[in-house]
Amino acid sequence: MINIKEEAAKAKKASSKMAAATLEVRNNALLSIARRLEESKEAIFEANAEDMAAAEEAGVSPSILKRLKFNEAKINDCVNGIYQLVSLPDPLGTVQLSRELDEGLTLYRVACPIGVIGIIFEARPDALVQISSLCLKSGNCAILKGGKETAKTNKVLFDLIYETALKEGLPEGCMCRAELHNEIDELLSCDKDVDLLIPRGSNRFVRYIMENTKIPVMGHSDGICHIYVDEDYDEGKALSVIIDAKTQYTAACNAVETVLVSRKIAERFLPTLAKALTENRVKIRGTKEASELIDPVAPCEIMGEDEFNTEYLDLVLSVKLVEDVDEAVNHINSFGSHHTDAIITENDVTAEYFMQMVDSAGVYRNCSTRFADGFRYGFGAEVGISTGKIHARGPVGLEGLVTYKYKLYGNGHIVRDYAEGRRSFNFKDKVV
Amino acid sequence: MINIKEEAAKAKKASSKMAAATLEVRNNALLSIARRLEESKEAIFEANAEDMAAAEEAGVSPSILKRLKFNEAKINDCVNGIYQLVSLPDPLGTVQLSRELDEGLTLYRVACPIGVIGIIFEARPDALVQISSLCLKSGNCAILKGGKETAKTNKVLFDLIYETALKEGLPEGCMCRAELHNEIDELLSCDKDVDLLIPRGSNRFVRYIMENTKIPVMGHSDGICHIYVDEDYDEGKALSVIIDAKTQYTAACNAVETVLVSRKIAERFLPTLAKALTENRVKIRGTKEASELIDPVAPCEIMGEDEFNTEYLDLVLSVKLVEDVDEAVNHINSFGSHHTDAIITENDVTAEYFMQMVDSAGVYRNCSTRFADGFRYGFGAEVGISTGKIHARGPVGLEGLVTYKYKLYGNGHIVRDYAEGRRSFNFKDKVV
Repeated sequence: MINIKEEAAKAKKASSKMAAATLEVRNNALLSIARRLEESKEAIFEANAEDMAAAEEAGVSPSILKRLKFNEAKINDCVNGIYQLVSLPDPLGTVQLSRELDEGLTLYRVACPIGVIGIIFEARPDALVQISSLCLKSGNCAILKGGKETAKTNKVLFDLIYETALKEGLPEGCMCRAELHNEIDELLSCDKDVDLLIPRGSNRFVRYIMENTKIPVMGHSDGICHIYVDEDYDEGKALSVIIDAKTQYTAACNAVETVLVSRKIAERFLPTLAKALTENRVKIRGTKEASELIDPVAPCEIMGEDEFNTEYLDLVLSVKLVEDVDEAVNHINSFGSHHTDAIITENDVTAEYFMQMVDSAGVYRNCSTRFADGFRYGFGAEVGISTGKIHARGPVGLEGLVTYKYKLYGNGHIVRDYAEGRRSFNFKDKVV
Repeated sequence: MINIKEEAAKAKKASSKMAAATLEVRNNALLSIARRLEESKEAIFEANAEDMAAAEEAGVSPSILKRLKFNEAKINDCVNGIYQLVSLPDPLGTVQLSRELDEGLTLYRVACPIGVIGIIFEARPDALVQISSLCLKSGNCAILKGGKETAKTNKVLFDLIYETALKEGLPEGCMCRAELHNEIDELLSCDKDVDLLIPRGSNRFVRYIMENTKIPVMGHSDGICHIYVDEDYDEGKALSVIIDAKTQYTAACNAVETVLVSRKIAERFLPTLAKALTENRVKIRGTKEASELIDPVAPCEIMGEDEFNTEYLDLVLSVKLVEDVDEAVNHINSFGSHHTDAIITENDVTAEYFMQMVDSAGVYRNCSTRFADGFRYGFGAEVGISTGKIHARGPVGLEGLVTYKYKLYGNGHIVRDYAEGRRSFNFKDKVV
């Protein structure tokens, strides 16, 4: 067991050096890590086999076991992810603003790392590799706490990554690994040294983190995603998008939980939809009005209006009729979680209106909500999906791990001269 | 008295319409507000005279009274500020990313307002005008709570601004004004409807806000700014910058609180500095080592190492000797508040090293820390200065009031096709 407070203070101390590491050093470290991952497959598999055996013995469900398993394919994905990350441009040092305030007084805004980031993530060994690579590329120090079911695999992976990072010249303390669940609470109290927390996991868990720390938290707390089927819908697109968004991976936060259907087409569309859902083993719940149209085709449990804020994460779907796009927007903005919401329509005006008015990180037209993901957006990887609006929204890649500082160069300039009218500002922006 | 919870819910409802308001509508509203401010001077002065009389009667200090006073010059500044804001480009609608993920599946990242912002600010009528103009230009709904000492002036200003905004077509509920101190606590509980809180005021007050709400908070909690005088310093610059940063406006968060002096030049520089400080009525406190060099010239109170985290906001300055730039950086990163810190040096290498290693929103060379300010940075105005690193850092203008959303356009695209290998992503960025 490590002392998290001490490790956080060490990371804070390392963070200035980490921020100053050149792109070459950071990329070389990533390349070496990729190589060592390939060379160390056997040791990794061995540790993972121990984790798997313990999990099976503990009666962990097959779907979770699938996530714990770290096989050849997953290592290859991780290695490819690292190569992709190496090929991305440097997120640091970018000059975002260059402005002469007055003669000889020049202001620059320059991208820099956030500093020390604490990431608490689920039991998935690939997550450890992705997250630590993202932090490394963005010059951040990382405190990593992974799910306990993969503790042995995580240890092997972490040791390999951290040792390689040090060998390649990154500062001691740039990464540390927390092991025990009670270390999370200790981490939450490190607001002097930790600049950002990224918790991944259940809604309840993320809320717990948010309510128990002064450190800024970037995490989604739930995903209540909607699909609105407009009167100008295309039936084929509507059906396949809804089935995909509900069934392709039900446990994901970007799976759809509620379908809103325009009253004008409900009589025609709802029975067809109900049939398709039932064929895909999706249980339907709906308002009384919806259930009356569905009932002749499939069972539909009647639900109360106040239940529409339910995240099922299962083969269950809420259905409701709405008068028009305005009612759909209002429902989504009231009951949704501002994650990802889609409209099915062939009407450009309605689509634009929906996408303007819905207050969510992702607003989609004629495609599955399941696309909300850092890989699918081309970010190389993601550290999480943010449903907050501050700092980063939606899937968070490298850019979300970066902040900026203002650099001001003068030649003895003082404010009194400007306050007393002897000099005045004369802003001239340079193109950056 | 208004019901803040209801007003916040109303603002949330208005926020989608506010976000959709065109630049023309927003700019026209600002121009009308500027005109009406000029037309309504008499009514504003009358209300302000009542506030001033009450404050004088209550024995408010002359320096505070100066801030409460809303005169011709301050109205003109506000009006000019609004014209400047109108001339700035639209912060909304900017396409930050445009990427084809696959044939017919295109992702855009588009700038949009944050939504509903609660701003709690000190008793300064010009602050109300600046803050509401910034929110209006950036398409945000604002809940405004100003200092009670200017309640009458604020009411006249708010009514004028809000009425004009409505007349120009902005949605009802886009602004509201809280009056009473206990309404702040009510505001803190509106985490469902308020997206961001910006508290301005004392360190203690900002901390209170941070500790009592789940709403993200953007506020500086203190300003412990440093100036490091390097061995390669220019004496003239060092003296005038330090005197300016300490005395030009002591109550500001960007005033200097600690001067660090290289041991190599201390014997020469400290007596000169001490003389200049004393002439400017600045009380000196320092380590024993520093005081021994200062004592022959001026009184120097000996202070403990643990007192260097003091924000005096007064004509008092802490002084310490350091071995080199590394010790200066370590001291600043440990005792500072990550606000604004400066180096006085003619050495380019030392300057760059300092500016890289100091972990603050502003890192300055050869100029006064007092430049850390939205106006002086050319932002038109500021809603506050952030010492946090998340979302916005340093002086926060329009840009800090904006977030983004991802828009994804498909043609029936589903994730299953990609997961099962029938299609694959083919990222193509368009230049934006």
